[in-house]
Amino acid sequence: MPDKITVKAPSSTANLGPGFDVFGLALNAFHDEVTLTRQDSGINITTDGNIPTRPTDNTAGLVVKNAKRKFKIRDGIKIDIKKRVPAGFGMGSSAASAAAAAVAVDRLFELGLDSDALVELAGSGEKASAGTIHYDNVAASVLGGFVIVRDNPLSVIRIKPPQSLRMCVAVPSITVPKKKTQASRSVIPTMISLKDSITNLSSATSIAAGFASGDSHMIGSSIRDVIVEPARQHMIPGFASVKRNALKAGATGVAISGAGPSVIAFSEKGADMDEIAAAMAKGFASAKTRCQTIICKPSVGAIVRG
Amino acid sequence: MPDKITVKAPSSTANLGPGFDVFGLALNAFHDEVTLTRQDSGINITTDGNIPTRPTDNTAGLVVKNAKRKFKIRDGIKIDIKKRVPAGFGMGSSAASAAAAAVAVDRLFELGLDSDALVELAGSGEKASAGTIHYDNVAASVLGGFVIVRDNPLSVIRIKPPQSLRMCVAVPSITVPKKKTQASRSVIPTMISLKDSITNLSSATSIAAGFASGDSHMIGSSIRDVIVEPARQHMIPGFASVKRNALKAGATGVAISGAGPSVIAFSEKGADMDEIAAAMAKGFASAKTRCQTIICKPSVGAIVRG
Repeated sequence: MPDKITVKAPSSTANLGPGFDVFGLALNAFHDEVTLTRQDSGINITTDGNIPTRPTDNTAGLVVKNAKRKFKIRDGIKIDIKKRVPAGFGMGSSAASAAAAAVAVDRLFELGLDSDALVELAGSGEKASAGTIHYDNVAASVLGGFVIVRDNPLSVIRIKPPQSLRMCVAVPSITVPKKKTQASRSVIPTMISLKDSITNLSSATSIAAGFASGDSHMIGSSIRDVIVEPARQHMIPGFASVKRNALKAGATGVAISGAGPSVIAFSEKGADMDEIAAAMAKGFASAKTRCQTIICKPSVGAIVRG
Repeated sequence: MPDKITVKAPSSTANLGPGFDVFGLALNAFHDEVTLTRQDSGINITTDGNIPTRPTDNTAGLVVKNAKRKFKIRDGIKIDIKKRVPAGFGMGSSAASAAAAAVAVDRLFELGLDSDALVELAGSGEKASAGTIHYDNVAASVLGGFVIVRDNPLSVIRIKPPQSLRMCVAVPSITVPKKKTQASRSVIPTMISLKDSITNLSSATSIAAGFASGDSHMIGSSIRDVIVEPARQHMIPGFASVKRNALKAGATGVAISGAGPSVIAFSEKGADMDEIAAAMAKGFASAKTRCQTIICKPSVGAIVRG
């Protein structure tokens, strides 16, 4: 068994509009890298990122701690995290570190976990960051591509996205509240009308069919959310302009990325992605907000580095 | 232009569990046949079925009436309906007649309607029977295969189902109330929890992905409905036994077919469908109810005969 391993895991976008708490998509916009090294005892964390380093407050740390207990690993483990996915912007940052840590601990100690078990282990780390466990981002970050998460028991469907799918993510430069996930969940109604649920279900099933049949246009044009977006959009300065501008510039669909505040536009090969990026930046600018735009594609999942 | 045309349209099952008002699947269990013949004036209906023959009370009649007005058809039309889909049992009976009539009038008068326009015309006939328009059954019956219905504006996604998919429908011999669709809709809650909507959405998106990727097992095993089935199952004598028995006998999923009272079990090539049929009949028998069981496959849509 090796003494050391490095795993790289991608950023991800959750929900894709109507697929709240169910859909995830790995994006090659950013990657976290987690290196695990055996040591005599304990868990120690170092990182170049602005994240907690106490193992129970760190998603990668919690994954390693949970794995040590569950799989009776006696060695100590040093964790080094190269943090590249911006934290707290709806890009699956905590999930990327958790996914990389789960795959790294599986390989380093030859645990032989299957896909669902890896996602479950990675998800156990999300508790450090989000307070509750949601598997949409970790499933995408571990497995890559598009995922449909089914809970109780956890089982993830993984679908390879069409090659022609293109995205542009706009990450606004705003101060994110400390407990952002809780704050952004608290605005969502707990009861909804059956009518709205049918509207979202028809859109979400069209998105799933689009991924499964490799139809990028069906994916983008089906992104329509009458439940979560109306409740959350006030938390994103200029959202309506960002969306309108992106659609005008050729995006086929626009959604809040995960819990926000990043916004993601979907389109397909042949679209002028630079124009879409500029249009989104202009939308944020109309609300006196700067943003970083990243043109990206679906990503493979967490992989061991050379 | 010919003077006469006969179109055959299949029965269908709507909802498939969690896809309430969105999913439809054409079934080769039963077919209605509609023959249109030009005549000097007016609309006259003859049928061997126990259905109304006043044009505005008959789904095929209403389709023809609406088409005459919308497309300025001056000829009179005689409609003959061979009724084979049992009416009022959740098998898309009114939709089958409407679908056959829509395709027949399109061909007889060379209207050149596209898929969505044909579905919309067929749906306009459903008002005669259901009181409101829902496109799930008519879309399946017109287009065949599996359909995802998106409303406002109407747009239907049609997916060819996997060859390996097998179904068994059990049609119980019970007296169906006159206004069955309204009665069975009235028990469904108008407000639901976000949590339940997420559960149904994850199941429904898995079903859609199953159809689009040709995975019969994914389709059947994803049929799980925590919203409509709990509200409606009391209307079907022995439903819990029918479902349990079918699953024990090898069905991968069981749902109320449309608004019921028929129950549909899903499985795949290689399963003992006769055993599933017998198990369902035994379930109904436990509630002192006889039933007809039909083992079937997905069907093509409405087609011109000979």
